[in-house]
Amino acid sequence: MTASHPPTHADALTYEMAGVNYDQVDPIKLLAQQSARATSAQLDRHGMQEVAASRGESAYVLDAGPFYLASIVECLGTKILVADAVYRETGKSFYAAIAQDTIAMAVNDLITVGATPLIVQAYWAAGGSDWFADKQRAADLIKGWKAACETCGVSWGGGETPALAGVVEGGTIDLGASCTGIVKPKSRLSLGDNLSVGDAIVILASSGIHANGVSLARKLAERLPNGYQTAIAPHGKAGELFGEALLAPTTLYAPVTEALAKAGVSVKYCVNVTGHGWRKLLRHTSVFTYRIHAVPPVPPVLAFMQAETKLDNSEAYGTLNMGAGFAFFVAPAQAEKTVAIARECGIDAWVAGSVEAGPKQVIIEPIGVTYSAEDLKLR
Amino acid sequence: MTASHPPTHADALTYEMAGVNYDQVDPIKLLAQQSARATSAQLDRHGMQEVAASRGESAYVLDAGPFYLASIVECLGTKILVADAVYRETGKSFYAAIAQDTIAMAVNDLITVGATPLIVQAYWAAGGSDWFADKQRAADLIKGWKAACETCGVSWGGGETPALAGVVEGGTIDLGASCTGIVKPKSRLSLGDNLSVGDAIVILASSGIHANGVSLARKLAERLPNGYQTAIAPHGKAGELFGEALLAPTTLYAPVTEALAKAGVSVKYCVNVTGHGWRKLLRHTSVFTYRIHAVPPVPPVLAFMQAETKLDNSEAYGTLNMGAGFAFFVAPAQAEKTVAIARECGIDAWVAGSVEAGPKQVIIEPIGVTYSAEDLKLR
Repeated sequence: MTASHPPTHADALTYEMAGVNYDQVDPIKLLAQQSARATSAQLDRHGMQEVAASRGESAYVLDAGPFYLASIVECLGTKILVADAVYRETGKSFYAAIAQDTIAMAVNDLITVGATPLIVQAYWAAGGSDWFADKQRAADLIKGWKAACETCGVSWGGGETPALAGVVEGGTIDLGASCTGIVKPKSRLSLGDNLSVGDAIVILASSGIHANGVSLARKLAERLPNGYQTAIAPHGKAGELFGEALLAPTTLYAPVTEALAKAGVSVKYCVNVTGHGWRKLLRHTSVFTYRIHAVPPVPPVLAFMQAETKLDNSEAYGTLNMGAGFAFFVAPAQAEKTVAIARECGIDAWVAGSVEAGPKQVIIEPIGVTYSAEDLKLR
Repeated sequence: MTASHPPTHADALTYEMAGVNYDQVDPIKLLAQQSARATSAQLDRHGMQEVAASRGESAYVLDAGPFYLASIVECLGTKILVADAVYRETGKSFYAAIAQDTIAMAVNDLITVGATPLIVQAYWAAGGSDWFADKQRAADLIKGWKAACETCGVSWGGGETPALAGVVEGGTIDLGASCTGIVKPKSRLSLGDNLSVGDAIVILASSGIHANGVSLARKLAERLPNGYQTAIAPHGKAGELFGEALLAPTTLYAPVTEALAKAGVSVKYCVNVTGHGWRKLLRHTSVFTYRIHAVPPVPPVLAFMQAETKLDNSEAYGTLNMGAGFAFFVAPAQAEKTVAIARECGIDAWVAGSVEAGPKQVIIEPIGVTYSAEDLKLR
């Protein structure tokens, strides 16, 4: 965050305090990215080449001749621990929802480059064979996985279901997904090459926390006397409990990207709003100012989290999605059409801002928060 | 195993005792496979279709028009715990080797369908951010990963390096890889459709345990007074220790499949010998008898394991690779050429057997062991 932000409330619960130390992860992540980049020369022997601009974006893209090939691997992360806790405490299984979350992590990233997702592979590493002995839980996971694949129009190709006692904690499961797709026609590639001043930023609603900021949510649950069973009123509906609200499955945006392509809307760039919250809007390498004039309604569970953790707006929007699950960058003439198509897909959307000439920053006017380039180091 | 096998030695250490219960895993795996199969209809909306015969094979294949698309996700499994233990005990880092193992798990599976591997994605889920704070260990992992990608001719597209305290055990890391490739020309597809009586079985050498049977190795280490620091002599070289011998990196077979294609050798079917050991030779749906007349030399570390765990040959060959890392099924006229090409790639190989008419079984003549269809239920 920039120094101009107001100081954090003394007993605020920050993301670093919740155990995620980006300073420790990032240097080795950068070394890995540099080493990865060097391997692209290997494609020469197959007469192929990568699309270099996809390095550092949400999915990797290769030029396969008649179309581009895109691939990604992603994980659910610690959201499984929320599902486990709620299941233990109430007997309610949210494993179908968790399956959708996992697929969303992969597919919502893959589609940012303009790819049509085609194949999902399941990576389900259990803490022991006994995880699968709970037939209801396992069947729910499978059911949710299948349904999410159907929503995204992908074929579930298979996967891996190892039992990894000693690597994965007993009683839980490490869930991940890989996704492969193609960009066809090649003009659908949306790596932001022609992102320009005046472009509109269309924001699509999130369904809740999705699967980022969950460490913070878990830390908060530990603090609350009733933990996950805490009512989130007055933020949420009467009777809505923290744990169950957290477990609303992540919105799947693939139907929207496909509908946009079908309707002839040319998407210039996309951002899947995940870790780093709204700071992700700074993802593209270009130097632009992104001015946001409208923020979406904050999902009750996130409003509750912000209030309880006493995060200021800069911290909240820099960590959580705060209602913005996905963003499209399109020519201004196509902004309203983009909104309309998203709504036809059942996902609320708004023309939320525009691309301006200026230093690399995102200015969220309604809440008086600005993030600058140094607030997001992903490459 | 069939009932005709001699009873197990009273204090033998079986795979079930080592904590892997296939009976518990398989039913839900089958349900997952059935649900996955149902999603293939989703491809209709993209004007594509799966190659149905790839279901249940080692990689999933889709007809993308000008070529086939293949994808896979795989995990290293518990071999990381051997590397962790040896690192703790001796300070020697085998994380570069472990990286190669992880890529081998994915790439060696992908190539079985005739695909040229193009993109690898890294899935590195650490038990905490601090895993990456050990710079040497992390740098070795990256170095080994890059080198393995170069051997396989793939581009390392990126990946995910989450810190998953509470899901992954502290101090360790859950390693996986996804791989995407293409089958081009389409005639390279090697799903066994034209596998026939008289075909030759060419076996390629393994480098050691690879990454299957590791739970058994770990259980054995617990039993040995010096654990991983036990000399494996007289099986191995003087001074060779159990832990380090286990950590010989898995052979990468992609250079061989590419060289065979270049030389015009038509591969009908491939088996990556992983879990279930030689029972994997029964993988294809066809009903044939696979008669093996020659077995490869047993790697010292596996000979040591068999001796120490008192597994009979049926159990040993049904669990461990026992020197056979990969198998090609080719027309008999191309068998010797296949062997020669593998050797040119630096991997020893033998014409080891042939496909015969008869019930579904693999007869390993030199050791008097037969596995029948009920010994392998993967679909």
